[in-house]
Amino acid sequence: MAPKYVYFFGNGKAEGSAEMRNLLGGKGAGLAEMTNLGIPVPPGFTITTEVCTVYYTNNQQWPAGLEDEIRQNMAKLEQAMGKKFNDPHNPLLVSVRSGARVSMPGMMDTILNLGLNDITVRGLVEQSGNERFAYDSYRRFVQMYSDVVLGVPHAEFEKLIDEKKHERGVELDTELTAEDWKDLVAKYKALVLKATGKPFPEEPWEQLKGAINAVFGSWNNPRAIKYRELNNIPGDWGTAVNVQAMVFGNLGDTSGTGVAFTRNPSTGEKQFYGEFLINAQGEDVVAGIRTPQPIAALEQTLPSAYNQLKEIYQRLEAHYKDMQDIEFTVENGRLFMLQTRSGKRTAMAAVKIAVDMVKEGLIDKATAVKRVEPDQIVQLLHPMIDPDQKLEVIAKGLPASPGAAVGRVVFSADDAEAWAARKEKVILVRSETSPEDIGGMHAAQGILTSRGGMTSHAAVVSRGMGKCAVVGCGAIRVEEDKKVFHVNGRVIREGDWISLNGTTGEVILGQAKMIEPRLGGDFATLMSWADEIRKLGVEANADTPHDAKVARELGAQGVGLCRTEHMFFAADRIRAVREMILAEDSEGRAKALAKIEPMQKQDFREIFLAMEGLPVTIRLLDPPLHEFLPHEEDLIVELAKEMGVSAEALRNKVESLKEFNPMLGLRGCRLGILYPEIYDMQMRAIFEAAGELVKEGHAVHPEVMMPLVGTLAEMKDLRRRCDAIAKETQDRLGVKFAYKVGTMIEVPRAALAAGDIAKEAEFFSFGTNDLTQMTFGYSRDDAQGTFLPVYLQKEILPQDPFRTLDQEGVGKLIQMAVAEGRKSRPDLRVGICGEHGGDPESVKFCHRAGLNYVSCSPYRVPVARLAAAHAVLEEKKA
Amino acid sequence: MAPKYVYFFGNGKAEGSAEMRNLLGGKGAGLAEMTNLGIPVPPGFTITTEVCTVYYTNNQQWPAGLEDEIRQNMAKLEQAMGKKFNDPHNPLLVSVRSGARVSMPGMMDTILNLGLNDITVRGLVEQSGNERFAYDSYRRFVQMYSDVVLGVPHAEFEKLIDEKKHERGVELDTELTAEDWKDLVAKYKALVLKATGKPFPEEPWEQLKGAINAVFGSWNNPRAIKYRELNNIPGDWGTAVNVQAMVFGNLGDTSGTGVAFTRNPSTGEKQFYGEFLINAQGEDVVAGIRTPQPIAALEQTLPSAYNQLKEIYQRLEAHYKDMQDIEFTVENGRLFMLQTRSGKRTAMAAVKIAVDMVKEGLIDKATAVKRVEPDQIVQLLHPMIDPDQKLEVIAKGLPASPGAAVGRVVFSADDAEAWAARKEKVILVRSETSPEDIGGMHAAQGILTSRGGMTSHAAVVSRGMGKCAVVGCGAIRVEEDKKVFHVNGRVIREGDWISLNGTTGEVILGQAKMIEPRLGGDFATLMSWADEIRKLGVEANADTPHDAKVARELGAQGVGLCRTEHMFFAADRIRAVREMILAEDSEGRAKALAKIEPMQKQDFREIFLAMEGLPVTIRLLDPPLHEFLPHEEDLIVELAKEMGVSAEALRNKVESLKEFNPMLGLRGCRLGILYPEIYDMQMRAIFEAAGELVKEGHAVHPEVMMPLVGTLAEMKDLRRRCDAIAKETQDRLGVKFAYKVGTMIEVPRAALAAGDIAKEAEFFSFGTNDLTQMTFGYSRDDAQGTFLPVYLQKEILPQDPFRTLDQEGVGKLIQMAVAEGRKSRPDLRVGICGEHGGDPESVKFCHRAGLNYVSCSPYRVPVARLAAAHAVLEEKKA
Repeated sequence: MAPKYVYFFGNGKAEGSAEMRNLLGGKGAGLAEMTNLGIPVPPGFTITTEVCTVYYTNNQQWPAGLEDEIRQNMAKLEQAMGKKFNDPHNPLLVSVRSGARVSMPGMMDTILNLGLNDITVRGLVEQSGNERFAYDSYRRFVQMYSDVVLGVPHAEFEKLIDEKKHERGVELDTELTAEDWKDLVAKYKALVLKATGKPFPEEPWEQLKGAINAVFGSWNNPRAIKYRELNNIPGDWGTAVNVQAMVFGNLGDTSGTGVAFTRNPSTGEKQFYGEFLINAQGEDVVAGIRTPQPIAALEQTLPSAYNQLKEIYQRLEAHYKDMQDIEFTVENGRLFMLQTRSGKRTAMAAVKIAVDMVKEGLIDKATAVKRVEPDQIVQLLHPMIDPDQKLEVIAKGLPASPGAAVGRVVFSADDAEAWAARKEKVILVRSETSPEDIGGMHAAQGILTSRGGMTSHAAVVSRGMGKCAVVGCGAIRVEEDKKVFHVNGRVIREGDWISLNGTTGEVILGQAKMIEPRLGGDFATLMSWADEIRKLGVEANADTPHDAKVARELGAQGVGLCRTEHMFFAADRIRAVREMILAEDSEGRAKALAKIEPMQKQDFREIFLAMEGLPVTIRLLDPPLHEFLPHEEDLIVELAKEMGVSAEALRNKVESLKEFNPMLGLRGCRLGILYPEIYDMQMRAIFEAAGELVKEGHAVHPEVMMPLVGTLAEMKDLRRRCDAIAKETQDRLGVKFAYKVGTMIEVPRAALAAGDIAKEAEFFSFGTNDLTQMTFGYSRDDAQGTFLPVYLQKEILPQDPFRTLDQEGVGKLIQMAVAEGRKSRPDLRVGICGEHGGDPESVKFCHRAGLNYVSCSPYRVPVARLAAAHAVLEEKKA
Repeated sequence: MAPKYVYFFGNGKAEGSAEMRNLLGGKGAGLAEMTNLGIPVPPGFTITTEVCTVYYTNNQQWPAGLEDEIRQNMAKLEQAMGKKFNDPHNPLLVSVRSGARVSMPGMMDTILNLGLNDITVRGLVEQSGNERFAYDSYRRFVQMYSDVVLGVPHAEFEKLIDEKKHERGVELDTELTAEDWKDLVAKYKALVLKATGKPFPEEPWEQLKGAINAVFGSWNNPRAIKYRELNNIPGDWGTAVNVQAMVFGNLGDTSGTGVAFTRNPSTGEKQFYGEFLINAQGEDVVAGIRTPQPIAALEQTLPSAYNQLKEIYQRLEAHYKDMQDIEFTVENGRLFMLQTRSGKRTAMAAVKIAVDMVKEGLIDKATAVKRVEPDQIVQLLHPMIDPDQKLEVIAKGLPASPGAAVGRVVFSADDAEAWAARKEKVILVRSETSPEDIGGMHAAQGILTSRGGMTSHAAVVSRGMGKCAVVGCGAIRVEEDKKVFHVNGRVIREGDWISLNGTTGEVILGQAKMIEPRLGGDFATLMSWADEIRKLGVEANADTPHDAKVARELGAQGVGLCRTEHMFFAADRIRAVREMILAEDSEGRAKALAKIEPMQKQDFREIFLAMEGLPVTIRLLDPPLHEFLPHEEDLIVELAKEMGVSAEALRNKVESLKEFNPMLGLRGCRLGILYPEIYDMQMRAIFEAAGELVKEGHAVHPEVMMPLVGTLAEMKDLRRRCDAIAKETQDRLGVKFAYKVGTMIEVPRAALAAGDIAKEAEFFSFGTNDLTQMTFGYSRDDAQGTFLPVYLQKEILPQDPFRTLDQEGVGKLIQMAVAEGRKSRPDLRVGICGEHGGDPESVKFCHRAGLNYVSCSPYRVPVARLAAAHAVLEEKKA
């Protein structure tokens, strides 16, 4: 038996319901549900999303039987309305709208008044007794249909209207008469014939088929595809098509149309919120030609419709138990509902509505937690640009790290530090950043780069710091040496004020006004509910005491990743680091490292104190050594002078450290095994800091993490040395403290050999950034600029694997490693510390994979807490 | 119960046997077996290899009970010999020798005459009635023991002998008297006291403990470790220690000592082969002071001992059913056997002996096949440097590709091609090679580079071509621009003759004489037996018709990997390739590619013809495009001029193609998806070549292989296009042909998603070079020069994973992929085409993993055939 393709609604009864959202789309399911609730809805029918999918697999042909089913439903609709499609005297007109499972901008919105032609328009005149209304409706239909279905640009029709107004010497559309519109309809049709080579379709059935196919077509237009890409919506969901009897808000002063929210979507306040226009069709509200009135004014204008609307909106909210976004039309005083759906809302509103509805007894805490999208709440954690101001946006880049920043432009990390030292707020602007810029990035309010993607150095480090960043802003050209940047012919100089919006990627000229985040109240309440539900621990990636403190305030239960390389760049130690690299032998290296050791110890003391009572996982030195040396000739010469070596020698060293594929080169624990002095120094610093603090009465939980381990033998070697240094330190200080030794799992082989490695590792932390790079064979830095965008666009990849964990590939390795690791060591602690630790979908995967914790940037900690709670709730549902 | 640490042999009965080789070492097992066979062997005992392992895990201490067991066995030995250890009148003297499972140069060899001191030496005088013999034995013992156990250099003792000879006015050792030796012993001991700060140990038990510990110590000396590394011998096997009663070959003219082989170890001829010295101890044969006599002369000198020896060697060979390497001593006319073991032999001898022994009915074919080491036979496939000549070796590099070559030095690929065109034999000498040198490498007899490791470009490509190469020869300094290279103060100029030995890495001045390989006769017989046994298919990696022909002659059953990128470098098409890269759009690329297409078609025609009837697997373009462009400024300027573009534009293009990690960048099928024109052209060329040949009546089996696939979506996209082009070509040519479409599995994700990918791929070929790089996170090019040597030396890695497949990590991925792939597609054809396809251990793994075939360099094909047979035989055994 063929599946049912079309679902009818009308006369107080619908074949569909709210539960059939996947099949009927959001709009269709809402119309059906309202119909069943006895709410007045113009009758109509929904062609299912499955038809769209079949349409595409079927070479863009309708499945057999579809046309019959549509004709049967049209007959039902004619009966319900007492009108007939294409009837010269009493014509049935319909609207055709798309409606996917989730609301999707970029898809075809609406065609109104379908069914009109030169004959039926006369019937509409007959029925309405309003010729101007009828021809206005007709020309609207021709214009809309030609634009959306036939591809004749909207502007060309507007030009004809302008000509007509000019000819008639009037200014407003409303001043045009029925005759004018009639004449314009003729001109419109001539335009269509000229532009498409075919006459405008007069046959209503032909019009309907064209409209339905246009809805299907809009599912795969570039904007819709782009939106799906960004929102991880599968291409095979498809869209439904809603065909609904027209009701008219443009029949005079007792008619109108409006949109409203059952609560304030910006703030979440419990107030009926919206606007309406008297004597208008839906599109007029959006078009902005006339200014709509606030919804409250409807009480005066059309009190009975208003009262009915109020009763309906309250019923709808009570029924759906969520804030609704509704559309309605009043036709000659009679109210019709055209749509109800969950209303989109700001993060602030989402939190307030969720918490309020629990207080009101509408929903339980679990539902409240589910109502807030984890990704959304990042907005609440950062200062925001006050939307109530006029901004001069001069460029737009990638929104790499959310929040907003205002400061004066500087072009080097050193300048950033120097200006910040004299209390200047600065924005660091560079072509791209490198590890040498860390200090300056810290000192700056925000970072702006002209190059690099969402996972470039600037982006990753900024997110880690919770610092606003806009990267890859191709419209600007930075001349660091001249201390200027160019944007669209304009020159911005050092010291000029700019503002950045890291949530939108906007670069704004001047000082924008800001709103500070508020983390107490409803936010705290909701997060506490999430914490009650979640099982996954949430820790933070924090490299400094400041980051650690912020993370703790945002609910981190430990530091899951403390990278030590950034500490090596500090001005007071980079020289010793370079001495170490240039040393000829182990002894020379040890001598240079001895200078750094007391500072490293101090770093760890401060982080341990900031996280007192909670675990701190410290990763030993990871990046290749060449990152600590300059690469440009002039900097080499300068440094050589400073270090008292020949430029030749330094150049040779830089050259000898060059690698074809540094990602796969001498880094991580390979460094620690080749040059044991480095790791030994770091481990001594960790244990001395821990030992001293324990002696002073503090509770510290150091965990030493080895990067890039791939074999049991590496882990064994490192573990043995770690234990020896721990014992030696404890003996020397005369104190005992607990510590753990574990490893990152970031090369595929480590995951494959997890059963072995767990024999020597007390914890695993999946470094999913590198693990993704090596599992896919994608260099993150290279892929972003070359094939990755194409792969996403062509749907070779369903989503960016550096943003959301690839569950089929990388995830499989993780699952294997967890299973094998726990087989060897049942109490193995397992977490994740890549960028994915702050991505909701990835956090949910970590929950399902049985991880103990995720670790992410401090400002992603609340996101992860909420996502972890969602994971539990989704599991319960399934 | 403690394990048994010591095994006795003597009086015609031994506690051990030949089967206990792992426990007793090769020497100990041989002595035990000979004892049990009733062959005269001086009695003694063997301390097991397990003791050595315990010794090292036990902080270099003897396990409890060992000393007791040694003392008990010494008592048995005293009883057997009727002498007593440390007896002043009738002292028992012993030899102490190491003996691992496999013979290992670099380990301690022998200490003779242990048990002598100032008192027991008098007993030896008493017993032998020969004071000179006794003191000569004593000074030999002190000298050997001091050198090996106490670390006093051998040369210092020799100096004392020279002084004594000078003082006595004589020239030969044999002219020194008993008194002289007595005096020298005193001088030796004074030297030891001075050098070590301790007197020479007089106590025989102390001597014995020192000697045993020295044997253990020699297991971990640098030379032994290095040897184990090169031969993949695990560090925890340990060595046994053999303590054996002394017999003396230096008691006069009816005494002597010798070594012999039961067949000729160079040629394999069936002849008793060896040499002996009258009146000598074992070390004299090796020392080369006196010239030994051929073994046949013993028949005249000591006929009864000779006849006994002949009977014994025939028994031993019949018993062991293998060629034996034996050591013997004759003491006063009485024959003692000191060792028997399988004799080492050349590849030629191994093949001949194996085939002869089958003819003699000694062994069956399977045993014969097992007797020849797969790696060894590579020697037989290449011209060899005639060993019967004096060579001037000027440097030694890595033996990257076996064989030998003689030619005149050139310094650029262009010169190589130009000289070869006028029939000059050339050796291409470069710092390192790049893909641009392929043509010159082809034209040259051999390749010599100063940089790069065993898997550098020069090494890999040379092996692929079966061309002799010596790489990473650090002793030479190449100045390509001046057309000279320097080596140890000598300058070699363009046009000078040199010779290369790719099997040893030697660089030889002048024209060495060569021996051509012979592949018929015994070799062909043995290989046919291997083919009867093996189950794994063996194909070849061949990029040219010539390679394909060679591969077929060497037994390849198809081309498992035909790389197409080398074809792009040919002089007549590189220009079009560069045009394609510089093109602004798809159309421009297609135009440039159209120029290459006919040539590509011709390439494929020729390879298909060379392999007629066998499958040819063609991999579409793999390397990143920047490899086809020059990178040095002067070359860029030159090319820009040639191409008629601005140097600026070309420079920008080169710059824009630069990647941080090209290994993980825009290459493989990513290119094919971003620029579909490239793959489409290649697929058309393949199918047109195939279609035309089929029309001409040839049997061709094209298989199209997609490189670097990581997801099902990639495979789907490529497969769809491939099928479309195949169909289009078949329709156009009006011919049908079969073809397959498959993929390399070389990124870990492909192995993880194998079940999915197999839905669209008809075959898998594991590209284990890249798979190893990405699974370990090792860049092959970088690792060889940095951490990999250290990892091997520290035993972090048991072996080089680029040489022998890492079964625990990479192998696990392969096993998973095979299982999941066959679940989706039961008839999935699975092979391997990395360098590992020619490595015996890896080939055996492939057999066990259920692969259908391996594909390797043409000259490794026989190695793989033999290894595949070994795999079956080993499986049967297990």
